[in-house]
Amino acid sequence: MTKRIAVIGAGPSGLAQLRAFQSAAQKGADIPEVVCFEKQSNWGGLWNYTWRTGVDENGEPVHGSMYRYLWSNGPKEGLEFADYSFEEHFGKQIASYPPRAVLFDYIEGRVLKANVRDWIRFSTVVRWVDYEAEAGDFEVTVHDMAADRVYTERFDNVIVASGHFSSPNVPEYPGFDRFNGRIVHAHDFRDAREFQGKDVLLMGSSYSAEDIGSQCWKYGAKSITTCYRSAPMGFDWPENWEEKGGFERVEGKTAYFSDGTTKDIDAIILCTGYRHYFPFLPDDLRLKTANRLATADLYKGVAYVHNPALFYLGMQDQWFTFNMFDAQAWWVRDVILGRIAIPEDKQVLMADVAEREAREEASDDTKYAINYQADYIKELIAETDYPSFDVDGASKAFFEWKKHKAQDIMGFRNNSYVSVMTGTMAPVHHTPWKDALDDSLEVYLQN
Amino acid sequence: MTKRIAVIGAGPSGLAQLRAFQSAAQKGADIPEVVCFEKQSNWGGLWNYTWRTGVDENGEPVHGSMYRYLWSNGPKEGLEFADYSFEEHFGKQIASYPPRAVLFDYIEGRVLKANVRDWIRFSTVVRWVDYEAEAGDFEVTVHDMAADRVYTERFDNVIVASGHFSSPNVPEYPGFDRFNGRIVHAHDFRDAREFQGKDVLLMGSSYSAEDIGSQCWKYGAKSITTCYRSAPMGFDWPENWEEKGGFERVEGKTAYFSDGTTKDIDAIILCTGYRHYFPFLPDDLRLKTANRLATADLYKGVAYVHNPALFYLGMQDQWFTFNMFDAQAWWVRDVILGRIAIPEDKQVLMADVAEREAREEASDDTKYAINYQADYIKELIAETDYPSFDVDGASKAFFEWKKHKAQDIMGFRNNSYVSVMTGTMAPVHHTPWKDALDDSLEVYLQN
Repeated sequence: MTKRIAVIGAGPSGLAQLRAFQSAAQKGADIPEVVCFEKQSNWGGLWNYTWRTGVDENGEPVHGSMYRYLWSNGPKEGLEFADYSFEEHFGKQIASYPPRAVLFDYIEGRVLKANVRDWIRFSTVVRWVDYEAEAGDFEVTVHDMAADRVYTERFDNVIVASGHFSSPNVPEYPGFDRFNGRIVHAHDFRDAREFQGKDVLLMGSSYSAEDIGSQCWKYGAKSITTCYRSAPMGFDWPENWEEKGGFERVEGKTAYFSDGTTKDIDAIILCTGYRHYFPFLPDDLRLKTANRLATADLYKGVAYVHNPALFYLGMQDQWFTFNMFDAQAWWVRDVILGRIAIPEDKQVLMADVAEREAREEASDDTKYAINYQADYIKELIAETDYPSFDVDGASKAFFEWKKHKAQDIMGFRNNSYVSVMTGTMAPVHHTPWKDALDDSLEVYLQN
Repeated sequence: MTKRIAVIGAGPSGLAQLRAFQSAAQKGADIPEVVCFEKQSNWGGLWNYTWRTGVDENGEPVHGSMYRYLWSNGPKEGLEFADYSFEEHFGKQIASYPPRAVLFDYIEGRVLKANVRDWIRFSTVVRWVDYEAEAGDFEVTVHDMAADRVYTERFDNVIVASGHFSSPNVPEYPGFDRFNGRIVHAHDFRDAREFQGKDVLLMGSSYSAEDIGSQCWKYGAKSITTCYRSAPMGFDWPENWEEKGGFERVEGKTAYFSDGTTKDIDAIILCTGYRHYFPFLPDDLRLKTANRLATADLYKGVAYVHNPALFYLGMQDQWFTFNMFDAQAWWVRDVILGRIAIPEDKQVLMADVAEREAREEASDDTKYAINYQADYIKELIAETDYPSFDVDGASKAFFEWKKHKAQDIMGFRNNSYVSVMTGTMAPVHHTPWKDALDDSLEVYLQN
């Protein structure tokens, strides 16, 4: 095979793509040349923790939104790889909410085993991608930051796996330009201990606000205030945690809310979400979508309807993560290998997108959404040789997780779930999450 | 004239370029179409203050390195425009070290008067520039962030005026990944009050360390520690300010220095400089130079020797600033208008660069360096109609400034100098710098 494939990004999605091709090769398939461009100096994407904020050592926006004490905020039983279990990697079953270092180790373990590191060009930023209609291929221009050299290569397919939790959505409110404390987006939040003894305001009511607030609480913030536009998170918060209505403005140290209340604060953490951001793509290739389960313009959630030689991985909002990326990567691989055909009629592709959108919009229920994404995974893996697994069983772990959070928001991570890959129950972690201040890999694995 | 000129950046350099063309048009010259691309939503470059850090509202690296309470760290008499004096703008002479809001107002005043705002496409990021050898022109691809639209236009000349104090040089030291306080580069430093009551370590011994340390001291930091690799700044620092040797590592809250001493710190501010950064330029157009008075590869300090249809403004290290950008902009304008010819022999261009480098390297003396840059300005303005002014007189203000700093590092801004443009002495400011906590334009101008 003389095809050449560009994969943009060596995070969980991009690495899934490399593993998918390597798996086919291992089974005897003739695979294309796969070149993965990664702007960071190591793989792992968001899981490649850095203390850096703002721009990186090369002047490029820091990719990572990872913070020091992050533990998985969903059970690992919902994201486990079907072809590489936690037990295979760690030699034993481990507790259900691993900290970042443990999850990084797991992600890395599979691709070390697959021996695909040589396919990746690290510290290489994709500057520009163009589709050449006449030749029917892509021109990819990249900047090798180590050599400070820009070069262009041609590829038959481009797979965008650069993530969509890297580019912060940062709103401006009255008084921000005069506030005397720190204002930081969740993207640039790193070490909760910096906020010890402080009155911290978190703007937002989704996962970032919940988890970064919990971090700050765990590591000794004086008080936590979160505020919401539409609805409170409504958990049974600790005594020094308060949910308020919409943020209106800040004057001096005083924050004003739409419910007429105020709160004196030392720092503002903006948990206001992320945006799909592809500065290297022209209009005719650039995905524009909301953060939702049914992305705009992606046939089967991955093939760009306006040019199906271009694929996007992991652009959906996510319940499932790693194993959904796998399902997508195996499916994209099989299109490229000629095992799956994408319909030539663009109307068919657009109808597929419309059907997914309508089906997502049919209900606001969380359980419905989890089942929706489970069905999507089942749909994709049925068409490839990705190891079949009990996706509904994984959904059940998510349902339990939702219940556990409602019962005890600062204690839900003390629960355990059954792996649908190996059938084993996770051990109860040796230390309750709120007391586990040392969350290094060594300490976490002492079960 | 049917020529089209692209100017990249609407900061002091880019605006000087617009004013230069407008000035020629005002005098009856036929000028090309000038299009200025500015990634920010307003003009002023570094002087366009934002509370934002990291990436901006469009996901692009924040351009500004400006902090809230910055006052000019050199006398305004050394940077005054020859065609638009401070007295013309403010209707009176003002004190010698204006805060940022005052300088922004001054910069803006000239270009408002010149009526060139329509030449600028704001919120427009230059994505890529290519030189088309056959057509002999440039293809400039930009992203209009407001419309989220990418488009390409052709230009006969490109003038890069994007500055070189925007992309931080951020070294990593042992312990950074485990430090529990804030680590921030000067580029992302905003409000000194955030460091009130804290022990602050500033890494570096140049202008950023000196000035940001002074800011933190003025606004109530508990202690200031600066550290140097080669030599201390050596000023007569306040009691709670200490200069130490090279930084080695941080463990917990304790910083270790090469002289064997330690210091417990709450925050680290990296004053480790900036890098020339042009992510929109291919290898054959991208300037690679150190931050020095004689830049590499620029004939007359502005014309790119490998392709003299491409110009760079303000890429030198600077004593003079605004009026040096003017000297460059007028000179570049006259090349484009055909009034000045660039030699066709590349060897001549390279010899010009080599001569400038050798002359810079002939002495390490500060006075020599100031005179060197004064000579450069005189050289350029002699070849254009930029208003001739007493450049040596401006140099004298710098010599005085150096003396005043040595005498009283926390009081040098209380001095006044004579304008070489209008001959008037600046008034003594109504409040000593260290006591002037409100540095708004309204308060500063109450002289």
